[in-house]
Amino acid sequence: MQLGVCYYPEHWPENKWESDARRMAEMGIARVRIAEFAWSRIEPEPGRYDWAWLDAAIATLARHRLEIVIGTPTASPPKWLVDRHPEILPVARDGSVMRFGSRRHYDISSPVYREHCARIVEAMVRRYGGHAAVVAWQTDNEFGCHNTLPSYTQAALHRFRRWLADRYETISTLNMVWGNVFWSMEYGSFDEIELPYCLPTDANPAHLLDYRRFQSDEVASFHALQADLIRQHAPGRDVLHNFMGFYAAFDHYAFARHGLDVAAWDSYPIPRTEVIPLAEADKHRWARTGHPDVSAFSHDLYRGIGNGRMWVMEQQAGPVNWAPFNPVPQPGIVRLWTWEAFAHGAELVSYFRWRQCPFAQEQMHSGLNTPDDTLSAGGQEAAQVGRALRKLSLPAERVRSTRAPVALLFDYEADWVFEAQRHGADFDYQHLVFEWYSALRELGLDIDIVSAHADVGEYRLVIAPTLPILPDSVVEQIERGTNHWVFGPRTGSKTEAFSIVPQLPPGELQRVLPARVVEVESLRPSIRPTLRFNGIEGVALRWRDHAKPGRATEAIARFDDGLPAVLRSERVTYMAACFDTTLLRAFIADCVGRAGIEATPMPEGLRLRRRGRLRFAINYGDQPQAVPASPGARFVVGGPLAGPVDVAAWIEED
Amino acid sequence: MQLGVCYYPEHWPENKWESDARRMAEMGIARVRIAEFAWSRIEPEPGRYDWAWLDAAIATLARHRLEIVIGTPTASPPKWLVDRHPEILPVARDGSVMRFGSRRHYDISSPVYREHCARIVEAMVRRYGGHAAVVAWQTDNEFGCHNTLPSYTQAALHRFRRWLADRYETISTLNMVWGNVFWSMEYGSFDEIELPYCLPTDANPAHLLDYRRFQSDEVASFHALQADLIRQHAPGRDVLHNFMGFYAAFDHYAFARHGLDVAAWDSYPIPRTEVIPLAEADKHRWARTGHPDVSAFSHDLYRGIGNGRMWVMEQQAGPVNWAPFNPVPQPGIVRLWTWEAFAHGAELVSYFRWRQCPFAQEQMHSGLNTPDDTLSAGGQEAAQVGRALRKLSLPAERVRSTRAPVALLFDYEADWVFEAQRHGADFDYQHLVFEWYSALRELGLDIDIVSAHADVGEYRLVIAPTLPILPDSVVEQIERGTNHWVFGPRTGSKTEAFSIVPQLPPGELQRVLPARVVEVESLRPSIRPTLRFNGIEGVALRWRDHAKPGRATEAIARFDDGLPAVLRSERVTYMAACFDTTLLRAFIADCVGRAGIEATPMPEGLRLRRRGRLRFAINYGDQPQAVPASPGARFVVGGPLAGPVDVAAWIEED
Amino acid sequence: MQLGVCYYPEHWPENKWESDARRMAEMGIARVRIAEFAWSRIEPEPGRYDWAWLDAAIATLARHRLEIVIGTPTASPPKWLVDRHPEILPVARDGSVMRFGSRRHYDISSPVYREHCARIVEAMVRRYGGHAAVVAWQTDNEFGCHNTLPSYTQAALHRFRRWLADRYETISTLNMVWGNVFWSMEYGSFDEIELPYCLPTDANPAHLLDYRRFQSDEVASFHALQADLIRQHAPGRDVLHNFMGFYAAFDHYAFARHGLDVAAWDSYPIPRTEVIPLAEADKHRWARTGHPDVSAFSHDLYRGIGNGRMWVMEQQAGPVNWAPFNPVPQPGIVRLWTWEAFAHGAELVSYFRWRQCPFAQEQMHSGLNTPDDTLSAGGQEAAQVGRALRKLSLPAERVRSTRAPVALLFDYEADWVFEAQRHGADFDYQHLVFEWYSALRELGLDIDIVSAHADVGEYRLVIAPTLPILPDSVVEQIERGTNHWVFGPRTGSKTEAFSIVPQLPPGELQRVLPARVVEVESLRPSIRPTLRFNGIEGVALRWRDHAKPGRATEAIARFDDGLPAVLRSERVTYMAACFDTTLLRAFIADCVGRAGIEATPMPEGLRLRRRGRLRFAINYGDQPQAVPASPGARFVVGGPLAGPVDVAAWIEED
Repeated sequence: MQLGVCYYPEHWPENKWESDARRMAEMGIARVRIAEFAWSRIEPEPGRYDWAWLDAAIATLARHRLEIVIGTPTASPPKWLVDRHPEILPVARDGSVMRFGSRRHYDISSPVYREHCARIVEAMVRRYGGHAAVVAWQTDNEFGCHNTLPSYTQAALHRFRRWLADRYETISTLNMVWGNVFWSMEYGSFDEIELPYCLPTDANPAHLLDYRRFQSDEVASFHALQADLIRQHAPGRDVLHNFMGFYAAFDHYAFARHGLDVAAWDSYPIPRTEVIPLAEADKHRWARTGHPDVSAFSHDLYRGIGNGRMWVMEQQAGPVNWAPFNPVPQPGIVRLWTWEAFAHGAELVSYFRWRQCPFAQEQMHSGLNTPDDTLSAGGQEAAQVGRALRKLSLPAERVRSTRAPVALLFDYEADWVFEAQRHGADFDYQHLVFEWYSALRELGLDIDIVSAHADVGEYRLVIAPTLPILPDSVVEQIERGTNHWVFGPRTGSKTEAFSIVPQLPPGELQRVLPARVVEVESLRPSIRPTLRFNGIEGVALRWRDHAKPGRATEAIARFDDGLPAVLRSERVTYMAACFDTTLLRAFIADCVGRAGIEATPMPEGLRLRRRGRLRFAINYGDQPQAVPASPGARFVVGGPLAGPVDVAAWIEED
Repeated sequence: MQLGVCYYPEHWPENKWESDARRMAEMGIARVRIAEFAWSRIEPEPGRYDWAWLDAAIATLARHRLEIVIGTPTASPPKWLVDRHPEILPVARDGSVMRFGSRRHYDISSPVYREHCARIVEAMVRRYGGHAAVVAWQTDNEFGCHNTLPSYTQAALHRFRRWLADRYETISTLNMVWGNVFWSMEYGSFDEIELPYCLPTDANPAHLLDYRRFQSDEVASFHALQADLIRQHAPGRDVLHNFMGFYAAFDHYAFARHGLDVAAWDSYPIPRTEVIPLAEADKHRWARTGHPDVSAFSHDLYRGIGNGRMWVMEQQAGPVNWAPFNPVPQPGIVRLWTWEAFAHGAELVSYFRWRQCPFAQEQMHSGLNTPDDTLSAGGQEAAQVGRALRKLSLPAERVRSTRAPVALLFDYEADWVFEAQRHGADFDYQHLVFEWYSALRELGLDIDIVSAHADVGEYRLVIAPTLPILPDSVVEQIERGTNHWVFGPRTGSKTEAFSIVPQLPPGELQRVLPARVVEVESLRPSIRPTLRFNGIEGVALRWRDHAKPGRATEAIARFDDGLPAVLRSERVTYMAACFDTTLLRAFIADCVGRAGIEATPMPEGLRLRRRGRLRFAINYGDQPQAVPASPGARFVVGGPLAGPVDVAAWIEED
Repeated sequence: MQLGVCYYPEHWPENKWESDARRMAEMGIARVRIAEFAWSRIEPEPGRYDWAWLDAAIATLARHRLEIVIGTPTASPPKWLVDRHPEILPVARDGSVMRFGSRRHYDISSPVYREHCARIVEAMVRRYGGHAAVVAWQTDNEFGCHNTLPSYTQAALHRFRRWLADRYETISTLNMVWGNVFWSMEYGSFDEIELPYCLPTDANPAHLLDYRRFQSDEVASFHALQADLIRQHAPGRDVLHNFMGFYAAFDHYAFARHGLDVAAWDSYPIPRTEVIPLAEADKHRWARTGHPDVSAFSHDLYRGIGNGRMWVMEQQAGPVNWAPFNPVPQPGIVRLWTWEAFAHGAELVSYFRWRQCPFAQEQMHSGLNTPDDTLSAGGQEAAQVGRALRKLSLPAERVRSTRAPVALLFDYEADWVFEAQRHGADFDYQHLVFEWYSALRELGLDIDIVSAHADVGEYRLVIAPTLPILPDSVVEQIERGTNHWVFGPRTGSKTEAFSIVPQLPPGELQRVLPARVVEVESLRPSIRPTLRFNGIEGVALRWRDHAKPGRATEAIARFDDGLPAVLRSERVTYMAACFDTTLLRAFIADCVGRAGIEATPMPEGLRLRRRGRLRFAINYGDQPQAVPASPGARFVVGGPLAGPVDVAAWIEED
C-alpha cells in the first residue's frame, strides 16, 4: 500500500524539481508518474531527441528514492508529425476530421501512426528500460477518452475489412450472419464493406457490434505494440495502462490479455457521480463526496481485470475542471478515497497531480499543491495518509485480497449490444450493473467483479444484472456447480452475431431455468407496473420481459397485472424487469440469503470491505457510525466509531 | 374487409414457406405483401436477375389462394449500385452525404437512380404483371421516411432550377415574387439559384416553400415513373403506395393524381402517440393503446386521398422497436385497431409482419408470430378477427363508406408554411388539426378529411383549423353555398408566394367575414390569455390573432382583455386563437349545433363511426360503455355493452 | 432628442415614397436610415452602378426635410460576388461553409471581400458624402449577428498567424505564454498555428482567448476600412455602427477607437428578455414589456462606448419575428421605451421599421405601419411621442447626460475568458453583470457603464461584478483614490495570457484587499450554501471562491459552513460568490451606503433616471406609482403619478 503522484517536470522550471522531489518523499510518496504527453519535448523535431531534461528529472526523483512510472507520450502526437501525416487525425461519427490543438488527435488504426509510436516508445524504453528507479511503464493515456472511439478513418475501414475477412472468411457468411438480406444490405465482397456511420437511419446492429469488437481489438493491438517493446527492453518492469471509470468502449478483459501486469485506473469520484446517469437526488446527495459505490465499483472491476493487481493511477485530490459543475470536495474525503482504494486492493494510490498547473486546459484542475506551492486541502489529507502508512506495517500476505462471497459478471459486449439497440431510451447497461452492485454493497457484502467467461465455481453467489449474449460456459457452470445464480432481464436474448436466440430468451438459460420470454417492453418513465414482495411495494422501471415460466420454474413474485416478475428454478433466479432500488435490494437480499451468505444491511453511506486480515469501514455519510468490529479488534486506522466522512480499519485475528 | 400480412420469404429458409402460407390462409389472411427491399436478391449483380426464389415464393402463396401485393424494391438500392454511382446518395440538411448501410440511401432527384429504378421495376412488372395472383403493386416504401426529404444534392439543385424556370419563366419574376430585394438576395439567372440550407440565418420562406413544393413534385414524379410502368405491364392491378401517419413532407393529394388506385398507409398507433407533440398526460394515458383519434385521423385522411379506397398496408400487431419507449400493447387493442380501420373504410388491414425477424435493424419489432413461430398475442387477436370476418357476410354496397356530415380541410402547404415560419416555437400545423379533429370525434361525429381545394358543397359543416394560403375556391363555395364553415387562426394570412396578404389576414375571407387581423402574437407557454364562453372558463395557447371585426361580424366570445376570441358572420365562424381542449370543444360544439348536426358527446375513450349500414362503437377506455344502438339493432361484432378496449358493430336497418 | 425610422424604399413602389416621406415628417420623425442591404440594387452587375433609384429616394426624403443616415450594404454581398469569389463565405465552428441565401454570408477576414467593400463604400460615399441631407453613415449592420463570429476560414487562419507573429515575435514566446508544453501542443513556427475548432476535446484557453482578440481586431479593422473612406469623402458627418444588445463577441471599446462618432444600437426589449438567461419567472413577468433593466443596461453601456453619444438605431415598435415566442407588446410600452432611451441619453430613437414588409424573412416583424399602410399600435405611440417632443423645447445643455454616482466596469475579455472556461455550466458573464446592474437600478440609482481601463476617479462607487483579468490601472486607482470599490468572484484570477495569477486570486487586488482564494467551486443548482446578512437569509449560487482573508481584511459575512462570503478592507469590498437576488441587493445596498450615496429602493417595475436637469420615472409595473419629484417640479411628460406602463419627466431646478 503505497502513495504516488503524477508529475510533469516539463511544466516547471528545473530549479523547482529538487524541492518538489524532496517534499514528495517527505510526505510519504513512493512513486511518481512522468512523461506521458511530453512527446514535443522528447522529440522536438523529427528524429531529434532531447533526453537531457528527462535524464535530469529522473535523476532528481531517483535521488530522493522515488520510484518512477514512465508514461509513453502517444496520446498527443506533436504538430510536426500531424503536419507530415495529416491522415493520422481521427474522424468523428459525423464524418468530420478532428484537428490538432488538444489531445487524442490520432486514429488508433493508422499504420503510419503506429510506426511512429513504435519508434518513440522504443527510443524511450531503450534509454530508460534498465534504469533502476524506473519500475513501471504506462502505455499512452486513457484510451478512448473524449469519445474518440470508435473512429471512422480510411485506415480503420481498411483494417476492419481485413478483420472481417479473418472472422468470416467468405462474404456470404458475413451476409448471412449479419442478416444483410434485410433491406438489401448484402455486400459483394469484403472490399465493399462500409463503416456504420452517417446513415439515413439505424445501422445493422450486427455491423455496429462487430465494429465495436474490431475497435476493441485495435485498442488492444495498439497497446500490445508498445507493451511488447517495453517487455523486450525493460524486463521485469510492470506494464500498465490507466483506464477510466465507467468506460466500456473496448473490452478491458481482452485488452489485459495483450500484456498487462497491473490494471491501473483514474479515479474521479465527484465528477463521475455528476456525469453518470444516477437519479438527480443521488447526484445532489453525494455531490461533495461522490456516490459511496462509484469508486468501489471500479476498484472491484479493475482488481479483476488486473488479475488481482490494481492501482489508482490518478486519484482526485480536490476540485476538478471537467464536469458541468465542479464543487470543492467535503473535508476528509480525499483521505477516505485513499483508504477505500487500499481496502479494495489497490497496491498504489497516485494523486493527480503534484501541483495545479496554472496554464492550458487543466488549469482549473487542483492538485496536492496550489499553483503557488502551498499544500492544498487534499494535499494535507494525502500527507495524513502518508504518515499513517508509515506507522502501519503489515506483512504483504496479511493484506492480500481474498475471494469475495459474491461474483458479479461484467461484460463489455453487453454494453455494446444495448448501445446498438437500447430499445428504451433510458436503458443503460452500466447503470443497471451499478444498481445491482450498489444493492449488494448496501448489504455489507464484498464483491468480485469478473468476466462473464470466468470460472466462478467457488463463489457462493454469482449475479449477472444482464448478459444478453450468454456464454455457454455460464450454463455449463450452473449445471455442474452448486452455487446460486441471479440473472437480470434481457439475459440470453441475443446470439453472438446479434440476432434473437432461436428458442427465445433467455436462450440456453432455459436448460436450467425453463421459461420463455415471449414479449418485451421498454417502459416510458410514467409507466410503472406495480408489484409487491415480502411486504414491500415497488415498481418496474425501464424494462419488462413478459415471460412464461415452464415446468419446474416458479414465479416468486408477480406484477399486479399477473405477469411474472421474478422466476426461480432451484439455484437460478431470473428478474424479469428493472426494479426500483428498494425492491431490487429486497430481491437481492432474498437471493443472498438463499446462497447462505450473511448480509449486514448498512446505514446510509456506510460500506464495509475486507482485505486479507484487514477489515475496513468506510463512512461516506454525515452521521457517525459504530463499525462492526469484534470486541478485541485491533484498530490500525480510526476506531470503533467512524465519524462523518471517515474510515476505520482493524485487524481480525483468526 | 380483408386481412393481409407483410411477408419476407427471402428472410426465411425456403422450407418454411409452405407452412407459412398454409397458416396464413388458415387464420383468415387473404393478401400478402412481398418483395419491397429485396433488390439485392432480385438483382444480385448488375444486370443479372434471379427470379427463381421469387417465382417459387409467389407460387407457394398462390397455391394457398393468397393474393399478392408486390412492392418495388427501390427504397434500398444494392451496394453495387451505390458503388457504381455514389452520386445517388442523399445529402442531409447539414450538407453531409448519407451513406450505404441502412435504407433510403438515395436521392429522389438523381437521374441515374431514376433510370435504374425504371429498369428494375420494368423487369419485375414484365415478369409478374400478368400473374393471376398478383393483384396489386406498391411503389417503393414510405417515401420520405427517416427525414430523407428534402434532400440537397446537385441533382436536386439542377432539377430545382429547371422547375423554377418553368414556374416563373423569368428570373426577375422569381426575384419579385420571392421578394429577393430583401437582403440583396436577388439572383441574376436561374443558374444562380441555390438550395436553402447551411445559411447563417433563416432562408427566405418563399424559397423554402418552393423547395418543399419542388420536392413534393419530385416524389410524385418518382412514383409516377413506376406507376406508369406498372399500369403498362400489369393492367387492371391496383397501384398504391404505403404512406405514413402524421407525415406531410409532400402533398399526398397531388401525389394521388399521378396514378394511385388505393391510398395505403402504415398504422403504428402506439409509437405514433409517443412521438407526436401531444401533452405528456395524454401520452401517458394512451401509452398502451395509442390515442383514440390517432389512427382514425389517418384513416379518414387517407380514405380521402384514395378517393374512397383505403388500405392499412402495415398494422402494428405488438410492441415495436422505433419509439423512445416501446411498451407491450394492451390486450385486445390489436383486434380493436383492426375493426376501427374497417369502420373507417379500410378495404384491407395488413399486419406487419408475419413473423418477427430475429436479425438486423427490426429484430425488436414484433409480428403475428414470434421468431420461434408461435402465434403472438397480437397474432391471436388477428386470428380472432379472421374468424369473425368469415362469419360476417355483408354485401359490399352495405358497407360502402358514406359521406360524413363534417368535412375537415387538410392542406400540405399549410404544414410547409408553418414549418418555414413557425413564429411560435410550439406552433405545429398537424397538431392543431389533430386537436380540432379530436374535438369533433369527442362529439361522436364522423368526419371526412379532404383537400382544401375539394368541392365540399354537400357537407353541412366544413372546418379548417387553419388555412394560411386560402384557395379562392373556398370563398367562392361559401358565397354560393348554404353550409356552415369554421376557420382557425392564421387562415388567409399568406399569398401563394408566401407574403402577407395585401388586405391583411384573413385575406379574401374578408368577403364573407369582414374583419382585419392587425397584429398577431405567439404566446410563450406561461402566457395564457383568459376568456369564458357559455359558462366555460378557458385560455388561449400558442397563438392569438388581434382582429378587428368589421361591419356584420360579431365577436361571439371575447378575451378578458377585450380582444375578440371568436368572430362570426352568418354561416362563417373564425377562431382567432388556439384554445385549450375544453374550450375548443365548446366552440366546435356551438358550430356543430348551428349547422344542425346532432352531436353525441362521448365518454372518455369511446368513439363512433358509421360505414354504410354498419355502425361501430370503439372503446379505447378502461370502463365498459353502453353503445348507442337502437333497440332492435343486429350486432355483428360484440353487443350493446362494449367492454374496455373493445368494439361493437351493428347493422342499422332503414 | 429626435425620432427616426428605418426605411427601405427599394422594397416599395416608387409612387409610395412621397406619401411615406410626408407622413414621416408629419408624425415628428426627423431622421431616416436607408440603404443597408441594398447592394444588389446599387450594383446589380459587377461594376455597373444604378444610382437613379437611390438619388430619387434621397431627394424625396430630403424634400420633406428629413435627415438621412446611409447604411453601407456590406452585410449582404450580392450573388454575383459570391459566385465569383466563393472563398468569401464564412466557415462555422463545425467546419461547414455557410452559404448564400440569407445575410452575413461573408468572412470578415477575406482580403478579396474587403477590397469589394472598400469599392462599394467608396462609390457610395463619393456620391452622397457631400449631400446636405445625408447627416450620418452606418457601417454594415450588426457585426457578428447570427453567431457569425468567430469564423474559421483560411483567410482568417492566415491573418491570425500574422497577428500572432506581431504579438509574440517568436514562436517560443507564444509556446511559453500559451503553455503549449501542456499536451505537447507546441508549434514549430507561426505557419503551423491552427484555428481552435473541431478538436477531440477543449482547446487551450489561451488559444481561444487570442482567437477572440484577433477576431475582435478584425471586426474593428473591417469597420475602420469603411470609416476611413467615409471620413475622407463625407467630412463632418457622423460615423456609426448599429451594435446589438447583450452581445460581446468583439470589444466594443476598442472598436470605438477605430473611428466612431456615435454608438448606435438596436433595441428589442421583448425578444431580448426571452432569450437571455433570466429566471423563468422573470421571463414570464416581463414577457410583454421586456425586463425593466434590459434596455437601460444597453443604453448605459453604449452611452459609455459612444463617449456620451448614443442612438437607438432600431427600436422595437411591435411584435417581432425572431424569438422563440413573440407576444404583442403591452399598450404604452413603445412610448415608454422611447422616453426611457431619451432618459438614458439617446440623441435619437429610430424605430424599426417604417412599414411591415409583407415578403421575405422579416414579414412577421411589425413596424410603425401595417403592410396595408395603417399606423400600427406602436406607430400611434411613436406619433404620441412625436407630438410631445414638438411641445418640449429644452436647451441642449439642460439635457446633457451627467456623470452618475456609480460606475460599473464592463469588460469584453471577461466574457471571452468565461466562455473559454466556464467551469460551471451556468456561469455567464453578462448575466452576472446584469444582476449587479439590476440590483443598483432597484435602489433608484443612475449608473455609468465604463471600460475596465477607464479613469473612474470621480465616481463615488465603482463596481466590477467580476474582472478575471484585472488591469493594473484598477489597483493603482484604488490606491491613489478615495472612492469605494466592489468586486465580484473570480476577479483577478487570470493573467493577460489566461493563466492563473502567480499569487493566486484575486491577484494584484491583494495589494488593497489582502486575501488569497485557495480553492474555487462551481455549484450545481441543487447545491446552495446558506448564509445571512443584516437579518436576510440567502444562498450562494453557481460559484464560490474559498478565500482566506489576510491581515486587515474582514469577512463582513460568512457562510453557515464558516467560509467567508464577503470580504472588506477599508474602501474595497469583495463578494466571494454569486448570490440570490435579494441577498445581492442587500450587499450592494451596504456598499452604496458606505460610499455615501443615497439609495431610493424602488417598487416593482419602477426606475429612475436623470438626464441633465430632467428627471424621469419609468414605470414598467402594473400599479400606478407616485414619482419622487419635489413639490414644485415642472412636469414635461406625465405628472406626479405614473400609471402602469407609463413615464413621467420633470425638470429639477437648481
